[in-house]
Amino acid sequence: MSKPLPLLTSPAPERRDAARNREALMTAATALVEEVGVRGVTMDALACRAGVGKGTVFRRFGSREGLMGAVLNHSETEWQAAVMSGPPPLGPGAPPFERLLAFGESRMLLNLRHAELIEAAGNPGARSVGALSFTTMHVRYLLSELQVEGDLSYLATALVAPLEIIVLREQVDRAHVPMGRLVAGWSDLARRVVGVT
Amino acid sequence: MSKPLPLLTSPAPERRDAARNREALMTAATALVEEVGVRGVTMDALACRAGVGKGTVFRRFGSREGLMGAVLNHSETEWQAAVMSGPPPLGPGAPPFERLLAFGESRMLLNLRHAELIEAAGNPGARSVGALSFTTMHVRYLLSELQVEGDLSYLATALVAPLEIIVLREQVDRAHVPMGRLVAGWSDLARRVVGVT
Repeated sequence: MSKPLPLLTSPAPERRDAARNREALMTAATALVEEVGVRGVTMDALACRAGVGKGTVFRRFGSREGLMGAVLNHSETEWQAAVMSGPPPLGPGAPPFERLLAFGESRMLLNLRHAELIEAAGNPGARSVGALSFTTMHVRYLLSELQVEGDLSYLATALVAPLEIIVLREQVDRAHVPMGRLVAGWSDLARRVVGVT
Repeated sequence: MSKPLPLLTSPAPERRDAARNREALMTAATALVEEVGVRGVTMDALACRAGVGKGTVFRRFGSREGLMGAVLNHSETEWQAAVMSGPPPLGPGAPPFERLLAFGESRMLLNLRHAELIEAAGNPGARSVGALSFTTMHVRYLLSELQVEGDLSYLATALVAPLEIIVLREQVDRAHVPMGRLVAGWSDLARRVVGVT
């Protein structure tokens, strides 16, 4: 009895199915979070929404914490894609200072949304190091495009630091600073750092 | 039988003793941390150093975490006193921009020392809200002395944000940025924010 030849042209069909299922679950989870908020999302509700069994949801994410971590990663990835290749002024095509201002406002809003997800993912006070190095590298790139002189890595870190969730929550939750004032404040900071008058 | 008159002239002698004991224990604990580092400090070593029983140390601090929290508070209080009334340029008497630069360097070093204490106190990622509002208010005061225009509260928060432990540890532990470069970077940031050329 000869062995069957290995299939070379149809690689891992189950893997593609799994990827499709994961994508469908992520889409459902993201939509659910947007509709009912982080607190309202249960594993049952997600299973129902995605039309799969609860067992599938648990196999995929392990726990509600795991689910929230996955939604967080998904959101971060989408945002990074928007910065890299989405429409201007956040994405390429706008002048670098306009991109910098768009980055500040967009990241501020994203981080405030992510704060709840991070907490629900069981990592209060944590932050994604990958996300941090992406944001810092992006700001560093824009500063070099703006021909700012000095220690651009430090200045980029300093511009990203006030956008940290821990700093934002202090301002929003404790001091009740309105978003408009935070956006205006960060834009002014960027202007001073870049030297735009 | 008449009740004894309440003592009016000698208030709570035990309380004064307790305060003296606490102060002696704090002094011993602070010295011990400086000598052997946070990791090396045990409740036994502190009892031995302070010449008291181990039970006294546990009654006072509850646990090693409690001890580290107390050392942290003590250090923060001493630093705030140095800012308020210590020698210039950190304390009063120097021009405000010199004070601002001294503040940045001093706070950076303090926060890196405090990082270990905070971890040992069982609050990784935590920070003292009281310390935060003190530093922000101090920077805000110096900015107004420097006649900086704009949203001084926001600018003060933005100058304090890169001094946060979480940001510093990223730079020092992960990216191995030398202290001198961090100090120079923050000074340059302060110069840009204040508009000193």
